Amino acid sequence: MEFSSKLLENAVHEMSQLPGIGKRTALRLVLHLLKQPKERTQELSTAILKLREEVNFCKSCFNISDSEYCEICTNPKRDNSIICVVEDVRDVMAIENTAQFHGKYHVLGGKISPMEGVGPQDLTIQPLIDKVKRGEVKELIFALSSTMEGDTTNFYIYKQLEGIDIKTSTIARGIAVGDELEYADEVTLGRSILNRVPFEHSIKAS
Amino acid sequence: MEFSSKLLENAVHEMSQLPGIGKRTALRLVLHLLKQPKERTQELSTAILKLREEVNFCKSCFNISDSEYCEICTNPKRDNSIICVVEDVRDVMAIENTAQFHGKYHVLGGKISPMEGVGPQDLTIQPLIDKVKRGEVKELIFALSSTMEGDTTNFYIYKQLEGIDIKTSTIARGIAVGDELEYADEVTLGRSILNRVPFEHSIKAS
Repeated sequence: MEFSSKLLENAVHEMSQLPGIGKRTALRLVLHLLKQPKERTQELSTAILKLREEVNFCKSCFNISDSEYCEICTNPKRDNSIICVVEDVRDVMAIENTAQFHGKYHVLGGKISPMEGVGPQDLTIQPLIDKVKRGEVKELIFALSSTMEGDTTNFYIYKQLEGIDIKTSTIARGIAVGDELEYADEVTLGRSILNRVPFEHSIKAS
Repeated sequence: MEFSSKLLENAVHEMSQLPGIGKRTALRLVLHLLKQPKERTQELSTAILKLREEVNFCKSCFNISDSEYCEICTNPKRDNSIICVVEDVRDVMAIENTAQFHGKYHVLGGKISPMEGVGPQDLTIQPLIDKVKRGEVKELIFALSSTMEGDTTNFYIYKQLEGIDIKTSTIARGIAVGDELEYADEVTLGRSILNRVPFEHSIKAS
């Protein structure tokens, strides 16, 4: 791609470093900004800079937060004894949207992935173990994605908890509500049969 | 979408104002920035701000340029007598990539579109007419997209040139090289038959 301006080339280059944004899309976005009032670019630029400079992570659960402890951790109505372990902030938002969970979270900040050079020390696993060892927590729900990395991370934490009296569970895997059986993959369908639930439970849930 | 931080919410909001970027994608992009070193966000932010503040449009062809006149307009090897009229900077880049055009460009900055409130006075049509009237230009190639707005814009410029001795042409519409006839739309296929070219020409071009 030949650019008529270094400034344009530079802006497109920086924009195309974002995940899923190629050179063409980056060019489209940057040209869009040029057609908008200058304030738009200033607002965008300030918003991302301010976030990056001033971002805070909750000292207890490592969720993104504007204060020292996040709104969920400081909410007295939330159950301290049950912690849902998730990969990142988006998972917290997804689970919060269901309004089905009233405990607290622990954001790991990723998954153990030797391929990408992410080890246990790069994640917030130690603070989680410490929290559990302090004895307030009765149950840990693993809600990581069910990939090799997710399973490894779950297992690593599980091993670290050996000898501690705590219940651990993982979120249910199965056929999504509304999905057709014939299009489901075999692993999911297989697990949904192995982990079948009493019919009365399914009536209560719906 | 419920955010745990105002800073995050604001950054996602600003990012999702870009065309084709929804709230979810915006969140993904912003969280990506948070995982990268601070310099990345600073570089991105500076690049778009600098472009927006310091952007220059070539005084002759209205292409984006770092100096008063762009590299194409100041290139003595380019033919002054033939001007290719395009909608925006991306079209200039696309035609330059073909290396088939050695004249100059004129960037309109859009198309006449009453639906979107874009009239002839919002585009750089008057400077184009003035340029033609100064008498250096012998041919105008219309390379706008063949939509209603593109055709309207072509026709508007064509009418403004009435009484001036100048050749006007449009780029050829036809079946793309390598495309199958059976999948082509009727209008394009029809035009490709009406505007057929002598066989010897097609040999020369390839």
